Amino acid sequence: MKAIILFGHGARDIRWREPFDCLASLWQEQHPGTPVQLAFLEMMRPSLEEAVASLSAKGATDLTVVPVFFGQGGHLRNDFPVILKECRGKFPSLRLSATPAVGEDLAVLQAIIDFGARAL
Amino acid sequence: MKAIILFGHGARDIRWREPFDCLASLWQEQHPGTPVQLAFLEMMRPSLEEAVASLSAKGATDLTVVPVFFGQGGHLRNDFPVILKECRGKFPSLRLSATPAVGEDLAVLQAIIDFGARAL
Repeated sequence: MKAIILFGHGARDIRWREPFDCLASLWQEQHPGTPVQLAFLEMMRPSLEEAVASLSAKGATDLTVVPVFFGQGGHLRNDFPVILKECRGKFPSLRLSATPAVGEDLAVLQAIIDFGARAL
Repeated sequence: MKAIILFGHGARDIRWREPFDCLASLWQEQHPGTPVQLAFLEMMRPSLEEAVASLSAKGATDLTVVPVFFGQGGHLRNDFPVILKECRGKFPSLRLSATPAVGEDLAVLQAIIDFGARAL
């Protein structure tokens, strides 16, 4: 079974995660057959490993991690591959892949442009 | 004249800003009559004040700042209003407004969901 992990940075302020909770709800409404988990790099739970464990316990075997970041800086280029490798080591029976950051997607950028245009 | 400022966090790795440069290019292509500037909270230039000065020098009088952040945590709830207030104090003849974070926009979130769905 496929599953998706929406992976964000995390923050001290709990309200920061509201769009992430909204993303998870939207996903589950629109893709009810594909379980979703949020995961955070730091300051929020679950960690990526905890999210992988949770989805594995639900029967997921093919997990795609989507980094919900704009830019690909040190966190995604340095920290994320290490965490992903550790998860692969701990869950060798799972297929664990990752997409580029969502900020690399032209449709996401276009939605931001359109949001700005509506605000002017 | 109206103008837009796309305001991001900033990062040490210069490659982090690639989606922001892409956003500025997209904006200018699609809205050639409305100047755009990027601005960053930290670690990258220009600052918000520098971006405001630059757009003011081009004749902009009505500036909208779009925070290109997912969540509204401490940076947007605490740091950003202080910087915005300082800019208003330094440029009293300009109209300087701000939108919520782009992560509050359902169309932006939907584009992220669709990106994830295509990756599975």
